[in-house]
Amino acid sequence: VQIAIGTYPGITALDAVGPYEVFAHLPGADVVVCAAQRGELDDDQGRLHLRIEYTFEETERPDVVLVPGGLSTRRLLRDGHPIIDWIRAVHPTATYTTSVCTGALLLGAAGLLDGRRATTHWTAHDTLRAFGARPIEQRVVEDGTIITAAGVSAGIDLALTLVARLTEPDIARAIQLGIEYDPQPPFDSGTPATAPPGIVELVRAVTGDAEQRFLDGPADMPDRRSGYPFSHDHDDRSKT
Amino acid sequence: VQIAIGTYPGITALDAVGPYEVFAHLPGADVVVCAAQRGELDDDQGRLHLRIEYTFEETERPDVVLVPGGLSTRRLLRDGHPIIDWIRAVHPTATYTTSVCTGALLLGAAGLLDGRRATTHWTAHDTLRAFGARPIEQRVVEDGTIITAAGVSAGIDLALTLVARLTEPDIARAIQLGIEYDPQPPFDSGTPATAPPGIVELVRAVTGDAEQRFLDGPADMPDRRSGYPFSHDHDDRSKT
Repeated sequence: VQIAIGTYPGITALDAVGPYEVFAHLPGADVVVCAAQRGELDDDQGRLHLRIEYTFEETERPDVVLVPGGLSTRRLLRDGHPIIDWIRAVHPTATYTTSVCTGALLLGAAGLLDGRRATTHWTAHDTLRAFGARPIEQRVVEDGTIITAAGVSAGIDLALTLVARLTEPDIARAIQLGIEYDPQPPFDSGTPATAPPGIVELVRAVTGDAEQRFLDGPADMPDRRSGYPFSHDHDDRSKT
Repeated sequence: VQIAIGTYPGITALDAVGPYEVFAHLPGADVVVCAAQRGELDDDQGRLHLRIEYTFEETERPDVVLVPGGLSTRRLLRDGHPIIDWIRAVHPTATYTTSVCTGALLLGAAGLLDGRRATTHWTAHDTLRAFGARPIEQRVVEDGTIITAAGVSAGIDLALTLVARLTEPDIARAIQLGIEYDPQPPFDSGTPATAPPGIVELVRAVTGDAEQRFLDGPADMPDRRSGYPFSHDHDDRSKT
């Protein structure tokens, strides 16, 4: 089983690495992290630098496709990023095509979600609807061979669900135990339904601003200076 | 606030990236991913390649230290890896020194856990005890300025707890909502107490074997051919 994680500059690291950690422990799985080009790409916070070993062209028949989200996805949609063509090309022969967070928007742009039930980050449900999808407020949404997850951390739940589909529940249980996934969030603020209303509005505004900075940024985004606006300019830190 | 994530070849990627994603959204935080040397290092599954921008030498006064675990930690202990000296050097001036999973063993080797309450991956509690620590079966354990988390995915819970300590709970709530951390594992197998006994023994054996392969491996570990034994040899995949 080849599992391809399709990446691009400005991904949200945890969208990709949560499922990666689950898939990497799947017996017999060949996990391939690929992108439009070989070489380095940064995540949307600009502090994590991945070296990509495989191109989309080299990854033309994965059994499972996973597309992470990121603050740059709206820019990718505007620019018609190559990942959209890749998703369209690999989907017909894939056993499952999946996404985490705003990765669903890229599935939408590839034409996969028309008339489908799907989910994405809670701030992006309206955009998902624009692709003909029926947004569902659920952590993991399965519609035929397409499985989509809600924001960022939901990728872990999606990956465990998928492992059970691909093999058997006990393999998923073993991986869950291996990564000691017995989550105990210290607060109950993980969805807009449970978070305080003021915080919902704050996060919506901050996320929108960050996406706008990616839209406005230079061609070689992500620009480290235009990341999530909570963060200050990292480059000013004093060196020893 | 400078938050340093200290890495090494053979880390478990999610141990580092879970907290990274939380910290990167902390207003004013300068998140530095550092290692003994600049350049590339691989995770313990061998499919994720990080380019490291900062050395331990350049990161000498972080406010918060986070040490991820990995299948290579026992080898690091045996070889006296430079991260152990770094932990010993930065701890006295750090506001918090923290670990995820078997990162706690490195804190132990640096002499930080003698007489302390701490936790680690459930398979490593005995090793933790050998460093004078009192292993606690709890997801996140706070003892003074030292905070340790259980295996792999527990780093997310640790990071949210820490953000609330460093700032205020509402910031942690906003970050939790941003990463939509409303976990819904599809199975109840995240701890040895809830997993089926046969699966507990399987995962214990597989983890021990994988650690042994790192111990036996060549000096430039992680050797891609000696990763987690669930995985087959990735290099045999046919290229296009």
